[in-house]
Amino acid sequence: MPFELTPAEEMARKIVREYCEKYIIPRRKELMTNDQEMWDEEARRQTRAGLHLHIIPKEEGGTGIGYVASCITIEELCAAWPDISLAIYGEFAYYFAKATGGVVYEKFMPGILKGDILATPAVTEPSGGSDMLGLQSTAKKVDGGWVINGRKVFQSEGHYADFIMALVKTGDPNDPKTPGTRSLSAFIIEKGFDGFKIGRLENTLGRKGDLTEFVFDNVFVPDSHVVGGEAGIGRGIPPVFSAVADIGRLTICGMLNGISAGAYRTAMMYAKERHLYGRPISDLQMIQRRLSKMFTDLEAARIMVYRTAWLRTKGIRCDAEMSAAKNFAEQAAIRIAEHCVKIHGAYGTLEDYMPHHYYKHVPLRFSAGGTEESLDIMIANAIIKNEANPDLSRAASETTGWWGRLEW
Amino acid sequence: MPFELTPAEEMARKIVREYCEKYIIPRRKELMTNDQEMWDEEARRQTRAGLHLHIIPKEEGGTGIGYVASCITIEELCAAWPDISLAIYGEFAYYFAKATGGVVYEKFMPGILKGDILATPAVTEPSGGSDMLGLQSTAKKVDGGWVINGRKVFQSEGHYADFIMALVKTGDPNDPKTPGTRSLSAFIIEKGFDGFKIGRLENTLGRKGDLTEFVFDNVFVPDSHVVGGEAGIGRGIPPVFSAVADIGRLTICGMLNGISAGAYRTAMMYAKERHLYGRPISDLQMIQRRLSKMFTDLEAARIMVYRTAWLRTKGIRCDAEMSAAKNFAEQAAIRIAEHCVKIHGAYGTLEDYMPHHYYKHVPLRFSAGGTEESLDIMIANAIIKNEANPDLSRAASETTGWWGRLEW
Amino acid sequence: MPFELTPAEEMARKIVREYCEKYIIPRRKELMTNDQEMWDEEARRQTRAGLHLHIIPKEEGGTGIGYVASCITIEELCAAWPDISLAIYGEFAYYFAKATGGVVYEKFMPGILKGDILATPAVTEPSGGSDMLGLQSTAKKVDGGWVINGRKVFQSEGHYADFIMALVKTGDPNDPKTPGTRSLSAFIIEKGFDGFKIGRLENTLGRKGDLTEFVFDNVFVPDSHVVGGEAGIGRGIPPVFSAVADIGRLTICGMLNGISAGAYRTAMMYAKERHLYGRPISDLQMIQRRLSKMFTDLEAARIMVYRTAWLRTKGIRCDAEMSAAKNFAEQAAIRIAEHCVKIHGAYGTLEDYMPHHYYKHVPLRFSAGGTEESLDIMIANAIIKNEANPDLSRAASETTGWWGRLEW
Amino acid sequence: MPFELTPAEEMARKIVREYCEKYIIPRRKELMTNDQEMWDEEARRQTRAGLHLHIIPKEEGGTGIGYVASCITIEELCAAWPDISLAIYGEFAYYFAKATGGVVYEKFMPGILKGDILATPAVTEPSGGSDMLGLQSTAKKVDGGWVINGRKVFQSEGHYADFIMALVKTGDPNDPKTPGTRSLSAFIIEKGFDGFKIGRLENTLGRKGDLTEFVFDNVFVPDSHVVGGEAGIGRGIPPVFSAVADIGRLTICGMLNGISAGAYRTAMMYAKERHLYGRPISDLQMIQRRLSKMFTDLEAARIMVYRTAWLRTKGIRCDAEMSAAKNFAEQAAIRIAEHCVKIHGAYGTLEDYMPHHYYKHVPLRFSAGGTEESLDIMIANAIIKNEANPDLSRAASETTGWWGRLEW
Ligand SMILES: Cc1cc2nc3c(=O)[nH]c(=O)nc-3n(C[C@H](O)[C@H](O)[C@H](O)COP(=O)(O)OP(=O)(O)OC[C@H]3O[C@@H](n4cnc5c(N)ncnc54)[C@H](O)[C@@H]3O)c2cc1C
Ligand SMILES: Cc1cc2nc3c(=O)[nH]c(=O)nc-3n(C[C@H](O)[C@H](O)[C@H](O)COP(=O)(O)OP(=O)(O)OC[C@H]3O[C@@H](n4cnc5c(N)ncnc54)[C@H](O)[C@@H]3O)c2cc1C
Ligand SMILES: Cc1cc2nc3c(=O)[nH]c(=O)nc-3n(C[C@H](O)[C@H](O)[C@H](O)COP(=O)(O)OP(=O)(O)OC[C@H]3O[C@@H](n4cnc5c(N)ncnc54)[C@H](O)[C@@H]3O)c2cc1C
Ligand SMILES: Cc1cc2nc3c(=O)[nH]c(=O)nc-3n(C[C@H](O)[C@H](O)[C@H](O)COP(=O)(O)OP(=O)(O)OC[C@H]3O[C@@H](n4cnc5c(N)ncnc54)[C@H](O)[C@@H]3O)c2cc1C
Repeated sequence: MPFELTPAEEMARKIVREYCEKYIIPRRKELMTNDQEMWDEEARRQTRAGLHLHIIPKEEGGTGIGYVASCITIEELCAAWPDISLAIYGEFAYYFAKATGGVVYEKFMPGILKGDILATPAVTEPSGGSDMLGLQSTAKKVDGGWVINGRKVFQSEGHYADFIMALVKTGDPNDPKTPGTRSLSAFIIEKGFDGFKIGRLENTLGRKGDLTEFVFDNVFVPDSHVVGGEAGIGRGIPPVFSAVADIGRLTICGMLNGISAGAYRTAMMYAKERHLYGRPISDLQMIQRRLSKMFTDLEAARIMVYRTAWLRTKGIRCDAEMSAAKNFAEQAAIRIAEHCVKIHGAYGTLEDYMPHHYYKHVPLRFSAGGTEESLDIMIANAIIKNEANPDLSRAASETTGWWGRLEW
Repeated sequence: MPFELTPAEEMARKIVREYCEKYIIPRRKELMTNDQEMWDEEARRQTRAGLHLHIIPKEEGGTGIGYVASCITIEELCAAWPDISLAIYGEFAYYFAKATGGVVYEKFMPGILKGDILATPAVTEPSGGSDMLGLQSTAKKVDGGWVINGRKVFQSEGHYADFIMALVKTGDPNDPKTPGTRSLSAFIIEKGFDGFKIGRLENTLGRKGDLTEFVFDNVFVPDSHVVGGEAGIGRGIPPVFSAVADIGRLTICGMLNGISAGAYRTAMMYAKERHLYGRPISDLQMIQRRLSKMFTDLEAARIMVYRTAWLRTKGIRCDAEMSAAKNFAEQAAIRIAEHCVKIHGAYGTLEDYMPHHYYKHVPLRFSAGGTEESLDIMIANAIIKNEANPDLSRAASETTGWWGRLEW
Repeated sequence: MPFELTPAEEMARKIVREYCEKYIIPRRKELMTNDQEMWDEEARRQTRAGLHLHIIPKEEGGTGIGYVASCITIEELCAAWPDISLAIYGEFAYYFAKATGGVVYEKFMPGILKGDILATPAVTEPSGGSDMLGLQSTAKKVDGGWVINGRKVFQSEGHYADFIMALVKTGDPNDPKTPGTRSLSAFIIEKGFDGFKIGRLENTLGRKGDLTEFVFDNVFVPDSHVVGGEAGIGRGIPPVFSAVADIGRLTICGMLNGISAGAYRTAMMYAKERHLYGRPISDLQMIQRRLSKMFTDLEAARIMVYRTAWLRTKGIRCDAEMSAAKNFAEQAAIRIAEHCVKIHGAYGTLEDYMPHHYYKHVPLRFSAGGTEESLDIMIANAIIKNEANPDLSRAASETTGWWGRLEW
Repeated sequence: MPFELTPAEEMARKIVREYCEKYIIPRRKELMTNDQEMWDEEARRQTRAGLHLHIIPKEEGGTGIGYVASCITIEELCAAWPDISLAIYGEFAYYFAKATGGVVYEKFMPGILKGDILATPAVTEPSGGSDMLGLQSTAKKVDGGWVINGRKVFQSEGHYADFIMALVKTGDPNDPKTPGTRSLSAFIIEKGFDGFKIGRLENTLGRKGDLTEFVFDNVFVPDSHVVGGEAGIGRGIPPVFSAVADIGRLTICGMLNGISAGAYRTAMMYAKERHLYGRPISDLQMIQRRLSKMFTDLEAARIMVYRTAWLRTKGIRCDAEMSAAKNFAEQAAIRIAEHCVKIHGAYGTLEDYMPHHYYKHVPLRFSAGGTEESLDIMIANAIIKNEANPDLSRAASETTGWWGRLEW
């Protein structure tokens, strides 16, 4: 049971660290200005540097190293600046193109490989991201395609997207012909399509304007852009959910660990440099305890996330593992950010020091990729049905006969 | 980065589960009687079944599967009954024999492989297990050997031991010729040696009489039994500390995870079987949350421990990782045991149900293998000196230049 | 806003501490033997010493000091030995007698004041303590009274009880004439009544035989023993629930704080006396942190519980506050017991030292007086309906207009 | 043991709520603009409204209600907007004037009562706020006064201050004539004094420019402005520490509870209004659990803080209690803010919703008023020396004889 990064994965870390040292770390002050264009440029710089290629197989033009390398890349970007892992929109672009195939794949793939194309999933509406049947956007069949109306909120960096994958209603969930989630279908909508507009930009704990509203005003989408083709009508949940999980949730795990890693490194350095009472504060037991707990949490969060990423790369079902990894990495990041700020004393709260930024970016990851509640329910359902187990083994342990009475 | 048990490791789990289903689970009620002889018999049954052979290389007659298999074995034993992983005293026997070599190895190895020989490390004295220089037992050089006097407390299952490895003073730590820990040496003491007696047996949260006192009353130990030979005088700390870490701490990790695994399995089954308001309580969100948190903690604790065990098997330095794994597995076990008892309502407190036993065995593992404080200090020291990092990589990330100011 | 014990309350603490120093602390070793008769004797010694009289108004012969004094009394008893607060069965006796009135009050009150009478509430059945409509025991009307059949489990110290208050079915919850909880009524059953038997005694994390089964085999109960008289038929929930809350839940709070207080005192003394590296371990920052956290948790738990007890004494509705106090005191006790064991190193696990006992008694309090889940639901319901608020004020703050948007 | 707000304290809450509803809540959007003048105006509006008068006795012109009313006032201000409790600088002004007496009291008191005068304590230097002997600023005796040089950092809202109380070196801590802290003295420095300048303004997790640098460039301070008069030279620690505790630490407690209260109210309302799956999310058990935990934490934090404030009002020593209250209220606020953001889903991260603001303001309170470490050490020292106890009683319980062995 090897439990170590491969040389290729280590190389992926080296590459992205160099990227960060060149393009991000020296520009941190500038990043605080929230200049929209600068961010757009940065997004494309990342994809043009190929930071999104690890999930693309070699045969298709990627590095083929896999999801662990993707997580590592996101981690290092977020360690350098906690909401700058924009390469993921290149990953989404590939994932959507692949899921849709046909002309969509043909058209976008060359640009995706060059790093020119970004995409984002469009699910959430004001009615609530956890309640799929509450969605209001609709698509109506017309000749040669569909006409979409409605709006989506909280679209990550939606204003850069060259295309999106949107989940909308093609039926009525109460109609027995399109019951429940069979009323939902997924469509590829391109930036230039008539009637597709960027609405309000929201300012978050991250930065100004990082969550976008999409407005669909009689947008015509050709049949070729139905995800899953004709058979995809009424079957929009699977491609959207797997995109949200495989890319969305896993990248969020990477972001959380990146915040934790940045906070860990910053705190380690500060603890060694800050002197009180004539010696470094890293000599003090209470500070040592904080450092030790940060190390423990970060290591645990990383192993959980990397393992999930590895399972995903292998194509092994890992919903429960991925959900557990996200929930765990989130709690770890909360604790680690607190330690980091506290070790820095008042400096930890200043805009000019990194602890400030690590701390306030954590909650931005709470509901993205699934809320804690949704994930806990997903895990519980999987383990209750024995579809997942905490044995790190595909040979799920047989628990019959394990009833907890002393004799039976 | 594969993150999965090997077939050999899975086989190790299968074997020990069969052992448990045959010899432990049906005898749980009997185990509560604390009959000393029965426990002695059980200890040897485990080693005779070969459950201690995974850490012994194939060339020397073991299975050679490694420390992960050892952790799995201990886990399953403790899941079946939380303080019954006695095979570890066979592991200690091998480890001590190997460290000492010469006639000690020759003499004991055949018995060790057959599972007839058990051993235990003897360090702690009433003066405190964390303070090595406070030890009082002494060895004085005489012709052909050494004469040992003193006593040791909290010796795990010390009454079964066929031999022990004892750390005693061979010098004065304030004498510049034997400064500090250079005053300490390790000796192999056999059960039958004159003057070596079992003292008081302590009853713990585990069971009656599981911690033993050793009394050394002018025990003569031949030169062949000095660990490290002549050069070992004044160098007792390394072999003892590595035994306490490699076997002691790692087996404790296994025990903690075993308790967690047993509690998880018991709670899962109960939640599905217990009906309230006409449906299983596993339908209730608050119970689902508990199950999900148990899964998450158990999985995290297992990955951390298995990774450490794998590093250890490969001979890669992993003090910080092992300490973090123990501290983490301990907190996980505390939380999981609480969830398990709570899911069972009042049944969780009854002696006739397993949650009772899982809960009260956890603290038995607190100071064994190093207290939380000692381990936090060990981790902090390692990371401050950059001898360990949470990067899951031997290529420790270069953190120079990561100072947390926005510009520098 | 005074926040301090009154002189009468301090006196109550002094009295019970003297009792403990005389009758409990010197007999701790003996208490471990679980001799049933000795415990019975101890129960009556406590009530004969008047330790249960604080909740009885002066006019009725009690001390009238109130529930805070009762909590303090239970605390000190449990600090001395964690499951010895038996005086509460005298409190139950008074509470039941008062709720029933008439001949029951007349008959038992003199004995209650003398401390000769103990009682216990009888609700839980194997079908689950949280699901009232799942109860199976029944009472059928006959001439001059009722005939009761069924059984109850987990009856605290049920074998000492001189009488009990039992909740049983007098109707069918699905019958519109006795809908839902209107199918339940409460009865006083005396020890000597024909057909009322003590069944199986359970051994718990506390001690052997502290939870009892009651068997009702055609027990005839006269009309005078219906709680609430004729009008009480179909209205059994209110008196039973208020007994379980006012006495049951509040005494459990006292027990949890008693465990915490005992663990705190023991750890404080040990930390000052234990020397390592030539100085007391109370000099070490990591130990100081533990002591500080114990202090903080214990103080918080006590204030919450005393405040609830004070509200209760004043007759102010405090369901949410009492539930919060229990859930909080429970988590505090878990954490404090862990600190206490850890500060003691291996000594903390020994049967001959108190940390062992504090640790393992905590979970005995988990489901007694309401499980964490039940209480969280009760709190949530109260605050959602605005029947409780965390403002420490009867003038609940008006929260209209507090919607969380920046402008509205 | 009454445990309730007095009518005067409830009135104090009512008054400040009205203030908030009039001046703060409708201006929340504007407050985000960080306009320095607007904040200055707001600071004086609060003191002119008399919000700082509760700690001033009636005889001196205050309301005399006491520190509980002060905590309540700060709480409500922070619930309305988490860093707007500026009235405290009026409290500091009174406290310093009182401590200094003489012409300082005479001069400032009328303005303080009118609400025209604000002040701030000036202790921390870049060398570290926890290490008093590391301070570098100095005062040299000259004719009729002292000349002060040096600088101070992290001065709360320092740019509004009409005067400050500064701790500076009047001796060398290694000189036996001014050993250790006897080298430190406290001075009142007025805004207009020559050479006293506002330096750099820091942007924090709170808002832009809320922490200030003070520069002392040959500032002449007359003898009348030495705190404690001539005898105050070498005795600067007591007045400064008591100001930092009585005002600084206690107001921070109020701020933390204000954040918690605001987060609680916001979450309660949102949970009732947000509908998913056709019903309010307050119906879902996992949300109910969050609400219940928020209630419990907030209530506990409030009682602890109010009790401390009451002890302080009575003049009862309460260092340990106040430190425990701060550390507890801090952890409570962290947890409550997390719950609040999570209940709001993605809305919780938006700048236009309050959860965002509650979350990111919490860490601003970490080191202000003493870091967690400093306070844990202070508590530990007090309880180890038996100067404090968690008994809510001035009659500290006698713990002799409480040694944790079963017999002694
Ligand atoms: C930084 C960020 C980026 C995002 N990017 C995108 C994006 O690119 N595309 C996109 O479509 N969306 C995106 N989202 C939106 C995200 O998917 C939603 O926030 C998420 O699905 C939750 O939906 P909600 O915010 O409407 O919360 P709600 O669904 O309204 O949930 C409110 C609360 O109810 C709880 N809850 C919900 N259901 C249950 C249940 N059954 N039981 C118990 N509790 C429950 C939730 O856990 C939460 O606490 C992003 C969000 C963030 C913060
Ligand atoms: C089940 C069990 C099995 C065991 N088996 C063996 C065995 O086989 N052989 C053997 O030799 N021993 C054994 N031990 C003993 C074990 O090694 C010791 O308990 C351990 O080393 C701690 O020593 P102590 O109990 O004397 O605690 P102490 O050393 O007295 O520690 C007391 C407290 O002080 C803390 N502390 C100590 N040093 C520091 C520091 N520098 N800074 C901060 N805090 C500190 C500790 O963490 C602890 O909280 C066993 C113990 C248990 C519980
Ligand atoms: C020491 C002790 C003393 C006791 N003394 C007495 C006594 O004197 N008299 C007496 O009658 N009883 C007594 N009891 C029993 C006690 O009242 C019950 O244990 C309690 O009511 C819970 O019932 P249960 O144990 O059957 O658990 P169950 O009701 O079976 O609960 C199982 C689990 O389901 C959870 N659960 C239940 N309902 C819900 C829900 N709606 N949503 C989410 N989760 C839920 C529970 O929290 C628990 O985790 C005692 C128990 C103990 C441990
Ligand atoms: C919002 C805010 C307002 C403030 N207002 C004022 C003000 O008005 N006037 C003023 O003078 N100051 C003010 N301060 C400064 C505050 O007093 C200091 O931040 C505080 O004293 C800590 O000092 P530091 O920031 O230099 O941290 P440091 O003292 O450098 O501490 C760094 C770390 O070391 C830890 N540490 C320190 N000593 C020990 C020890 N003995 N053992 C273990 N760990 C230790 C600390 O806990 C911290 O984690 C304010 C701070 C903030 C954040």
